[in-house]
Amino acid sequence: MQAVRTKPGSHANPGVLPHVVIVGAGFAGLYAARTLKRAPVRLTVIDRRNHHLFQPLLYQVATASLSPSDIAYPIRAVLRRQDNTRVLLAKAVAIDTGTRMLMLQDGELTYDYLILATGARHSYFGHPEWEAYAPGLKSIEDALETRRRILLAFEMAERETDEERQRALLTFVIVGGGPTGVELAGAIAEIAYAVMVQDFRSIDPKDARIILIEAGPRMLPFMPESLSLKAEASLKRLGVEVLKNSPVTSVREGIVVSGNQSIHAGTILWAAGVTPSPLARSLGVPLDHIGRVPVQPDLSIAGHPEVFVLGDLAAFVDETGTTLPGLAAVAVQEGRQAARNILRMCKDLPSESFHYVDLGTMATIGRAAAVANLRALKLSGFPAWVIWIFVHILLLIGFRNRFIVLFEWAWAYFTMERSARLITGESEK
Amino acid sequence: MQAVRTKPGSHANPGVLPHVVIVGAGFAGLYAARTLKRAPVRLTVIDRRNHHLFQPLLYQVATASLSPSDIAYPIRAVLRRQDNTRVLLAKAVAIDTGTRMLMLQDGELTYDYLILATGARHSYFGHPEWEAYAPGLKSIEDALETRRRILLAFEMAERETDEERQRALLTFVIVGGGPTGVELAGAIAEIAYAVMVQDFRSIDPKDARIILIEAGPRMLPFMPESLSLKAEASLKRLGVEVLKNSPVTSVREGIVVSGNQSIHAGTILWAAGVTPSPLARSLGVPLDHIGRVPVQPDLSIAGHPEVFVLGDLAAFVDETGTTLPGLAAVAVQEGRQAARNILRMCKDLPSESFHYVDLGTMATIGRAAAVANLRALKLSGFPAWVIWIFVHILLLIGFRNRFIVLFEWAWAYFTMERSARLITGESEK
Repeated sequence: MQAVRTKPGSHANPGVLPHVVIVGAGFAGLYAARTLKRAPVRLTVIDRRNHHLFQPLLYQVATASLSPSDIAYPIRAVLRRQDNTRVLLAKAVAIDTGTRMLMLQDGELTYDYLILATGARHSYFGHPEWEAYAPGLKSIEDALETRRRILLAFEMAERETDEERQRALLTFVIVGGGPTGVELAGAIAEIAYAVMVQDFRSIDPKDARIILIEAGPRMLPFMPESLSLKAEASLKRLGVEVLKNSPVTSVREGIVVSGNQSIHAGTILWAAGVTPSPLARSLGVPLDHIGRVPVQPDLSIAGHPEVFVLGDLAAFVDETGTTLPGLAAVAVQEGRQAARNILRMCKDLPSESFHYVDLGTMATIGRAAAVANLRALKLSGFPAWVIWIFVHILLLIGFRNRFIVLFEWAWAYFTMERSARLITGESEK
Repeated sequence: MQAVRTKPGSHANPGVLPHVVIVGAGFAGLYAARTLKRAPVRLTVIDRRNHHLFQPLLYQVATASLSPSDIAYPIRAVLRRQDNTRVLLAKAVAIDTGTRMLMLQDGELTYDYLILATGARHSYFGHPEWEAYAPGLKSIEDALETRRRILLAFEMAERETDEERQRALLTFVIVGGGPTGVELAGAIAEIAYAVMVQDFRSIDPKDARIILIEAGPRMLPFMPESLSLKAEASLKRLGVEVLKNSPVTSVREGIVVSGNQSIHAGTILWAAGVTPSPLARSLGVPLDHIGRVPVQPDLSIAGHPEVFVLGDLAAFVDETGTTLPGLAAVAVQEGRQAARNILRMCKDLPSESFHYVDLGTMATIGRAAAVANLRALKLSGFPAWVIWIFVHILLLIGFRNRFIVLFEWAWAYFTMERSARLITGESEK
């Protein structure tokens, strides 16, 4: 591929519209792009994927409830009608804030305003070698690999004649008690204890053990303690074993060590930590302890009012001194504010500070169970689950995806089937 | 994994039910298994995939219209309620007809009756090296790779500044004018000329060239000539260039040579030939010129009345001297007859000859266009398309898949969207 060059237009150059470059079309990048829909700018959106991914539902692809296309949407199709916008499939590798230049793997382009929202990957706390034995969950490929491992474990157990190995194959360990870990554990429990009960002859899927390991004292640490306890109770009702205060000290092929316990598990899944995209390092500003970019109240970086960093890549400290968590809701609101600030700066107005409006947080724990912390209102069980469904359907992009996901959920609820129980990839296994 | 051994029960041994082993859960194998639902046999179904795949619609996954889970269904779930049946995920590697033993990659089992229905892969007529440049379409992985190449070609063209290379990237060659080739060419034409028209800024997808190359004198050679001509006319109306009498003599990276023409094409797809599964070779009977197993009138092989070979793996010559083609309808009817013959033999009754009931053949050529040869009735255009939709929805397994596929088709028809425009796999491209 050839270099992508754009004219070095700038708002100092009145004949040419300023060039806004957005790197990353996750929640922050995409909502920033949409906010600039009719703005007098030239907008370029760059992503190394061709699709926006609705990550909050990725665990449902990993557990065979949804298909990738139900929660992913081509970026180009979302922004099709924005005449000021072009979309490029490209990988950004570095930023030169001095010359306002973005380096791609195969080209470069200049910007007047830059929005950096490349998100985070999972992190193994200094043990990258654990990834091969305990994959994380950030992309569609991750989800399909997780699905393959979960379903294949049952298939291999059905054919295993050694009891000890069979028991290990039917043991599933999820490391990390945040929302992804809780949701994965609940979904795997449902597959084993409800969906597959009649499907095997040598094994009984009800013998499966699902173990959720959390290093800290409670599940869903960002939630009020009462909801953490409710979530834990829901998990236990589903049959999940919950280990708290149990930091994992070693992960090997089929073995997780936590404290003085060695657990033999055919499937180990990682939901414990994230690390921001390495692109941040080339900004030339000091990063926080986990590699996020500290941002100013207006979401720009120190010394470069034209560079905005958003979403999981940013460390935004609010009025109370709290760093905002890596949630879709934070990213969406940041995206809108950064876009508004660019529009203000184009008009030579000062940028505005960002104020996060916390509408609440939620997590679902399987069929008809969830917890929701909505400002003054703390909900659990069925009412929280209904709200969880409603909010997630509304946040999906496009009528087709909303309709299909709602249908799949209704179908799964009434039939206890899972529609995407396919083992794909590594065809010659 | 451990060896799978079953007791060497046999109908000669009255205390033990005879063991029927089916290898391959495509149309032939699955319909044979279902026919044995309440039969007094022990049935084992072996497949190296966990899912039955509805191959006639695989081209729609390759062209972003459907998701893999819409046309695939877990074999275990289909056969869940057959108490006499177990399903094993395993790869069969050889057969010893003398000892009635089936060798797996990781084990072995004995049978009293064997149904072999492992189908076919694509064939490159002695040029296996062409596969890397021109993938075929037989599995879900094939379809996702094809989808990736088609969508990536447009993305790369959007970023290409060299006109000649851009033109090559927007050239799509499909080799083979059978149903798969015709359906792929029509579907790609629709994506380029209707679905993506507003999505790009540097290229106009309408500049794409879609070239369908057939070695013989006409498209859909198994159809009556009048329908071949109608299909060709429909393709041309869609904008597809059709080359007939043009055997391909060389395929290299981005280049197809046919006659004295060298076509530079960013995407080359192979739909020209199939070769039966290599498992046939271990049966110890002479194979026909393309590697199929000649079968007796009752679908068993010469000298082994307890071994049945079905579907694309079998060469069945009917009363008129014609070898039946590799169609789903043939496989389904063969599967049922083989199962019935096993039931007869269990009762010491003679097996019956197979008679294929030809209900017709069809192919679709994009939006609201198809050809159908239904006994006395030859249809084309919209009526053929409606019948094509109706038949394919009915043949899908399960209400959920029927409902979703029908919804996706209606959605695509009215919105000109494609719901699965995702580039996945090879994430670090």
